[in-house]
Amino acid sequence: MGTQQRIVSGMRPTGKLHIGHYHGVLENWIKIQDSFDCFFFVADWHSLTTEYDNTAGIRTSIHEMVLDWVGFGLDPAKSVVFRQSMVPHHSELNLILSMITPVSWLERNPTYKEMLDNLAAKDLSTFGFLGYPVLMAADIILYKATRVPVGHDQLPHLEITREIARRFNYLYGNVFPEPEAFLTETPKLLGLDGRKMSKSYGNSIYLSDTAEETTKKVLSMMTDPARIRRSDPGDPDVCVAFNLHRIYVPQEKLDEIIPACRNAAIGCVECKKILAECMNERLAPCRSKRAELATRPDFVNDLLQDGSRRASEISDAVMAEVREALKI
Amino acid sequence: MGTQQRIVSGMRPTGKLHIGHYHGVLENWIKIQDSFDCFFFVADWHSLTTEYDNTAGIRTSIHEMVLDWVGFGLDPAKSVVFRQSMVPHHSELNLILSMITPVSWLERNPTYKEMLDNLAAKDLSTFGFLGYPVLMAADIILYKATRVPVGHDQLPHLEITREIARRFNYLYGNVFPEPEAFLTETPKLLGLDGRKMSKSYGNSIYLSDTAEETTKKVLSMMTDPARIRRSDPGDPDVCVAFNLHRIYVPQEKLDEIIPACRNAAIGCVECKKILAECMNERLAPCRSKRAELATRPDFVNDLLQDGSRRASEISDAVMAEVREALKI
Repeated sequence: MGTQQRIVSGMRPTGKLHIGHYHGVLENWIKIQDSFDCFFFVADWHSLTTEYDNTAGIRTSIHEMVLDWVGFGLDPAKSVVFRQSMVPHHSELNLILSMITPVSWLERNPTYKEMLDNLAAKDLSTFGFLGYPVLMAADIILYKATRVPVGHDQLPHLEITREIARRFNYLYGNVFPEPEAFLTETPKLLGLDGRKMSKSYGNSIYLSDTAEETTKKVLSMMTDPARIRRSDPGDPDVCVAFNLHRIYVPQEKLDEIIPACRNAAIGCVECKKILAECMNERLAPCRSKRAELATRPDFVNDLLQDGSRRASEISDAVMAEVREALKI
Repeated sequence: MGTQQRIVSGMRPTGKLHIGHYHGVLENWIKIQDSFDCFFFVADWHSLTTEYDNTAGIRTSIHEMVLDWVGFGLDPAKSVVFRQSMVPHHSELNLILSMITPVSWLERNPTYKEMLDNLAAKDLSTFGFLGYPVLMAADIILYKATRVPVGHDQLPHLEITREIARRFNYLYGNVFPEPEAFLTETPKLLGLDGRKMSKSYGNSIYLSDTAEETTKKVLSMMTDPARIRRSDPGDPDVCVAFNLHRIYVPQEKLDEIIPACRNAAIGCVECKKILAECMNERLAPCRSKRAELATRPDFVNDLLQDGSRRASEISDAVMAEVREALKI
């Protein structure tokens, strides 16, 4: 691998992924796995920062998510795919970094305050939630990552990671690179009802949905709310369904559909049928691969065991350097 | 071991121990090792909470301290003697417990505020220092300790441990006993200059001092400051040296010395020579055992490796229960 960039990225196990997750994160992972030395992990410790009182479904969530990852193209032969809690060094480095991280860096973290407000119904006044950026820093620098794929909203966290790496190097000698952001454009996908696609809103199309389920969901999707009668002209720019047309329908077809909508030459039902067909056609091979993987009861566990062993080999060497630097 | 009480206790590696450490903590460990199922550990992670910027001597400190432990009577065949950082479950349970511990429990911890004030010269505004009671809770409940030897000043920390254990059991089911305090009387030993005996004051008599060093130190020790001339009567109750007489000089001898001092029938030098002789006589067998152990280059490391392996066997089983309870 030599001077190749090393990427580390994780996803919390929230269960089966919807197409918003796919186009927002997973598709990017699959794209970069060919050109970089990648470590992708199931961030199950992260789940505990907000879901410590609701852990019942976590194993199923991990299982479903990893089936989506691999079914849709993440290749464990190209990247190290592992589970955070299976590599003990994450918690160990987290503990060490906690000793050198000022509380003020964590308290002034804008995401921290924002989440406390957004999730006011939850009790997030915990030490672990406050320390989330320390854990994230440990996850990343444990593999000496040089680049981290992040959206704009994650930039403050990455900045804390860089500050912690710098402070470690200052105190104990140069061990860690300061990972740089690898900004990813994440299109905010709309759900069936026009709100952001989200599991909790019940407005999602899942990667693992069947073709029938997909068609049914697409046909129930909101369009241009001003187009009441079939004979009314429509506006693709305000049509909820059309945010998926842009992704799934080929350009030639869009060039037909757009004027037809504006002229009321095509109805919404027909238009959404075209979308559903295109989606199902594109998703079919991955769905069938996923379905095949799902029939193998040990597939996910074996994959995570193997990946976590590979991750541990790397992190073991880094932790030996950390211990030497710390002189413990 | 069955229903036997399990004890867990640790000591920070601050280097060779002085007789204040011995009578304050180690002697008690040695006393209880016969009647309880004991886990004694080198608390090297704890050192980082306050000494993160000064780790250079930590390996030597561990070495010297463990020589003192075993030389003076701690028996690794009777107890599990290990090093905290060699058992990865400490950091893992620490991470898990951090998720369920309210920050307010840590902020209101009286010891926290007190130490921040006492050590104002140090930068202790770190996340790890704030989280010290969480780490301590992990250390203790990781082995399902039922009793913890503590001085009065440590009671607030133990109370947080009990609260965290209770909260874990409430959220995830009954896994941990709530460890009870095993209050130990710790006589505050005075140093050569009359202040509390402390390495940083340079007023200590070390367990590993030679007989000559001990005699020299004892002879330099403060006595009753009001007794200026040999012919002045003295008062053992305000004599600094006499706080050691009470420990080392046999009662029959004290019954002679006390009136002799009050009548100026014995001088301070003579009186301290008696003390030095009694000390050296009592400490000699342990000192020679310690010196013998110190000639074996792998002794400490082998002992800690073996003890940490034994500790890991227990903690491994407890962590399996923790994972089941958490359903991760």
